[in-house]
Amino acid sequence: MSKNLSIVNKDLKEERDKINFNVEEFTNWFYGGAEKVKEKKYIENYFLSDKDLNLELDTSYLSYKDKYEEAVRRSIVVYKKLYKLHNEMGGTHEDFVKIMENLRFTMGAINPEGNPFVLHFSMFALTIMNMTNDEQKAEWLPRIFNCNILGTYAQTELGHGTYIQRLETTATYDPKTKEFTLNSPTLTSYKWWPGNLGHTVDHAIVMAQLYSQGKCHGIQPFIVQLRDSETHKPLPGIDIGDIGNKVGFQTVNNGFLGFKNVKVPYKNMLMKNSKLLEDGTFIKPKNAKLNYGTMVIIRVHMIIDAACRIAKATTIALRYSLVRRQSPINPNEIEPKIIEHITQQNKIFPGIAKAVVFKCMADYLTKLHLSITQEGNTGNLARMPELHALSCCLKAVCTNEDAKTVEVCRLSCGGHGFLRSAGLDDVYRNSTAAQTYEGENTVMLLQAARFLIKSFNEARNGGSLTEGVKYLFDFIGRNGKREIFDNSINGILRAIQAAAAGRTYIAWKHIEDDKRHNSIEVATNLAGVHLTKAAELHGYVCLLQVGIEEIEKIIRNVSPALGLVFKNILELFAVDLILNKIGDVIQHVDISNEDIEKLEKQMETLFKFFRTSAIGVVDGFDFSDPIIDSTLGSYDGNVYENLINAARKSPLNQEDVNRTFHLYIKPFMKSNL
Amino acid sequence: MSKNLSIVNKDLKEERDKINFNVEEFTNWFYGGAEKVKEKKYIENYFLSDKDLNLELDTSYLSYKDKYEEAVRRSIVVYKKLYKLHNEMGGTHEDFVKIMENLRFTMGAINPEGNPFVLHFSMFALTIMNMTNDEQKAEWLPRIFNCNILGTYAQTELGHGTYIQRLETTATYDPKTKEFTLNSPTLTSYKWWPGNLGHTVDHAIVMAQLYSQGKCHGIQPFIVQLRDSETHKPLPGIDIGDIGNKVGFQTVNNGFLGFKNVKVPYKNMLMKNSKLLEDGTFIKPKNAKLNYGTMVIIRVHMIIDAACRIAKATTIALRYSLVRRQSPINPNEIEPKIIEHITQQNKIFPGIAKAVVFKCMADYLTKLHLSITQEGNTGNLARMPELHALSCCLKAVCTNEDAKTVEVCRLSCGGHGFLRSAGLDDVYRNSTAAQTYEGENTVMLLQAARFLIKSFNEARNGGSLTEGVKYLFDFIGRNGKREIFDNSINGILRAIQAAAAGRTYIAWKHIEDDKRHNSIEVATNLAGVHLTKAAELHGYVCLLQVGIEEIEKIIRNVSPALGLVFKNILELFAVDLILNKIGDVIQHVDISNEDIEKLEKQMETLFKFFRTSAIGVVDGFDFSDPIIDSTLGSYDGNVYENLINAARKSPLNQEDVNRTFHLYIKPFMKSNL
Repeated sequence: MSKNLSIVNKDLKEERDKINFNVEEFTNWFYGGAEKVKEKKYIENYFLSDKDLNLELDTSYLSYKDKYEEAVRRSIVVYKKLYKLHNEMGGTHEDFVKIMENLRFTMGAINPEGNPFVLHFSMFALTIMNMTNDEQKAEWLPRIFNCNILGTYAQTELGHGTYIQRLETTATYDPKTKEFTLNSPTLTSYKWWPGNLGHTVDHAIVMAQLYSQGKCHGIQPFIVQLRDSETHKPLPGIDIGDIGNKVGFQTVNNGFLGFKNVKVPYKNMLMKNSKLLEDGTFIKPKNAKLNYGTMVIIRVHMIIDAACRIAKATTIALRYSLVRRQSPINPNEIEPKIIEHITQQNKIFPGIAKAVVFKCMADYLTKLHLSITQEGNTGNLARMPELHALSCCLKAVCTNEDAKTVEVCRLSCGGHGFLRSAGLDDVYRNSTAAQTYEGENTVMLLQAARFLIKSFNEARNGGSLTEGVKYLFDFIGRNGKREIFDNSINGILRAIQAAAAGRTYIAWKHIEDDKRHNSIEVATNLAGVHLTKAAELHGYVCLLQVGIEEIEKIIRNVSPALGLVFKNILELFAVDLILNKIGDVIQHVDISNEDIEKLEKQMETLFKFFRTSAIGVVDGFDFSDPIIDSTLGSYDGNVYENLINAARKSPLNQEDVNRTFHLYIKPFMKSNL
Repeated sequence: MSKNLSIVNKDLKEERDKINFNVEEFTNWFYGGAEKVKEKKYIENYFLSDKDLNLELDTSYLSYKDKYEEAVRRSIVVYKKLYKLHNEMGGTHEDFVKIMENLRFTMGAINPEGNPFVLHFSMFALTIMNMTNDEQKAEWLPRIFNCNILGTYAQTELGHGTYIQRLETTATYDPKTKEFTLNSPTLTSYKWWPGNLGHTVDHAIVMAQLYSQGKCHGIQPFIVQLRDSETHKPLPGIDIGDIGNKVGFQTVNNGFLGFKNVKVPYKNMLMKNSKLLEDGTFIKPKNAKLNYGTMVIIRVHMIIDAACRIAKATTIALRYSLVRRQSPINPNEIEPKIIEHITQQNKIFPGIAKAVVFKCMADYLTKLHLSITQEGNTGNLARMPELHALSCCLKAVCTNEDAKTVEVCRLSCGGHGFLRSAGLDDVYRNSTAAQTYEGENTVMLLQAARFLIKSFNEARNGGSLTEGVKYLFDFIGRNGKREIFDNSINGILRAIQAAAAGRTYIAWKHIEDDKRHNSIEVATNLAGVHLTKAAELHGYVCLLQVGIEEIEKIIRNVSPALGLVFKNILELFAVDLILNKIGDVIQHVDISNEDIEKLEKQMETLFKFFRTSAIGVVDGFDFSDPIIDSTLGSYDGNVYENLINAARKSPLNQEDVNRTFHLYIKPFMKSNL
């Protein structure tokens, strides 16, 4: 956006002059085609150029309350523009949800700490689209898409996040009045965390234990009005508010919610799956696995987001490292760009490779999800468990790598990285949160591990395995002998597979041994650390395997120069991975110190090649300056001017002397101590 | 403090009833004696009970500017009380600096984002105490200790943090006027980062390149008045302000500072070391290593702080894990305390062990520093380089472990850990900052590595080695053969030593090989990744070695029950360490898969024992509720009550309906979209 407006720092220009491939071609790959890139740029400009948004205001200086109010104001500006755009383009409500999806980065630039309406068009609208019967759709969808009501999704409670079967909110049905009565029987049953709930929305889908005919029928969803349509005051029996300050997402308005005898009409229970007859008879759903699909697609989005956050953080860290000069390598020479320090390359280059491989993974999962959903529609659910395990495992591995990589990028910028204006802190807060939400990472890994153990048992008993875990056969086939190592890309893959299979075996054996004294559940718990390690290694196997497959395809379709860059990136990812997991690998692979030394040398060679391409790749991620929003990472590389200009905007600098000098400091300095 | 006021959660009480050692005895060890604990409690209560501090106000909700102003207000309240206490106790100015040092945790509870006067009694006062001649002491110290002037230390510039030799601020001496003229010749020469500089202090020690008689004589310190004593307005030629929002330390008031022909009198150059005669003749200092001592002691404090931050974070995470129940291990049983999940123990228990071992390390370094300083006073500087290398290395290793451990603790608390009221985020911000300030960690490791390589060369040439690196001899003596493993505590130490020596050898060989084509400096840079790894492993060697020595001493001096706990803690630290570094160990130690399995089993046994003691140990860290300041980690364990009470204090909850509903939301909901 501002690319052509300012003079680019000469050190950065010199780097760009040396780029040896077509950056635009890379951008087109990253966004899925030239048309998509054009669309993205149009949308970005359509929103971000709007003066009403007042994006000049740095909201990080505001109070918690002011931040929320400004986020509401900006969001309403955005939604009005969005409706205008949508009306111009035509299209259905479903298209609208898709536009929202593609807007995430632009929205992030507008409300860096989150959107107080974000759940309305996502979980609220989606749940009503997917979990209602036709009558309910007709009643609710027009009001939702016209924003006559605003809603969220209220599931998590103070006492329960992970283990939702034990949620405590109750909905008791009375066939006489044809009403449910909602109650929060304990403090821990209060809803807690739902986004937008505190003061923003007036409706919610509430997950509650359904009681009917004196029996509990498990968790069911209900549409509940929370606030008066005219006054926005909480309705009788509703205890609602904001849960308070957080590490990030300060403007998402996460809320709490307690019920005291709140009446909800019969028609407000969502009945696509379970059904309750008007007389109170409960009818179980035919297939409980229907919700897998939504969970999978949310996690795929989380992998794309992780890729983009790493891309953003490495863009900032790399551009800064090409401009910042410090500490001569040879004391008689001028200070080099800090990227010349090999330790700095080691902090940033593997991160760039991760962004690319994670993007490949997300693309692959999107296709896989589509194909498995199509199979599901014909009644074939065989590959569902693998897809579910895969999405759990990769959600955990990718968000964890994301947080670690972003933090390393911030640290690689030294003191200046600690400034909010560097932009890396905002990225980190989102990255680290993603390790917890939508399935806490350890829980995710344990779920994936269950699939691995099941597959391992299957393999031992000569059963059949789904594609992604066939490497377990190889391990069993070797019968305790170690895999032979070779440092080709497929050799590295086989080594990581051997490590993953080996750790699965260790976990399996641990459980088998323990089962002699304990129940299988207790034995499984005691093997927890091995199980999470096995799942994590399995995640890396998938990333490398899919990375190899996808990048081979890409290389066949792009120009040779860009192909070389992709090859370099894949090798960087693979060699970095095996060197980081060498402790796991070495236990199950015949790899010598000389092999390791060779890998380390290979890494240096890969760095040397990537030194020239790196800036092209991060430029190719194509984050415009308003999106990257960083004094250290702007396209022009005018780091020091950006830093001082940002500092001058600090509210403290709007006056020479702060009032506390006269109020407190001066009297103290002049007093007799 | 509030220990006796509220009813303790019954799950937590049940845990405390089972503690099998004397918690007070542990506390006395942690703080260095019963007398020190008493003193600590007195000081804490003296300050924290003061209603004028208004500690009820949660400053995290305030705007950036309001946060600063409240921090100034509270600090002045504190300083007045401090002077009152000091006057009552009597004592010298130097004692005063020591009281300040012991107040860090109390100060942290009062101003969680930092004290806007913190550098006055630390770097400002200390530098003037240590770097001035008698005349200067007489002029400045009374004004400093009476707070008639307030000062900071201004070294870092926009363009230079690490490599201070290339600072750009100039101080040019004119013998005619007997004045220095200070200038900031470039944008990058602006001072940037000094704490308290923005709007708080009126003086600073400014580090600048001294020019005299047409020559540059390197960096020298000058006392410079920045603001008018009466009006606090910046003096002519001074461009000064706040550097803006940061990841943490928002109220430290870090500032920028530019000079345009600012005159400073001759007598304001600090002349303890270098001297400038009035005619402009420069006289070099006799010994350039004099400053090592201060740097070392600052880093020792950083290790104590790292230990305390880990102690605080594990206290919160453990107490929460003993109260929170989630996810039955056996689906037919009630949900267990989450600490029963072995993965949770694995997240928290090794952290507690680290806090204890880091504290041992800090105690050891304090003694070592004292003894080496005494040697230095008799002219023997032989052990200085090792102490310097050691302090660099351990600063990096301990702050890095600190940040990682605190973040794992936060993640172990799931969603609730993401709340500011959980208190873990504030700890993390301080932890992660410590990785960068007072010597960026990678730079620290490279400095330590230089000492390792020098020692390795020395060892190869049959020279003598200082105590801490003698293990390099063992490695060279084995002549390529691997160390034999045994899983005793000393066996683990030898294994880590072999890994550290092995990595030092790899780095050394890398440099030797590369020297054939490159200069030694380029070769050293190319070996950077190996060098940092070697230094890091060396840091762990020191931690384990000192841990073993110190804990053996402790065990001889405490009751048998507490001795067992210390033994357990040491083994936890050791086994966790070797399992985490197995990839490095395995390359240089003959360790089989069976040995590793044994270590993993040993870890489980250690966890089982520690399960009972853990709560006693964290209680023994003795953080009172106002210091721990956490809804999840308070002594009473009433987690859910604390959470909802904290939420109700959110400024958004002080009204039913936020004004944005009427201003923006309602008009939008009622409009035709």
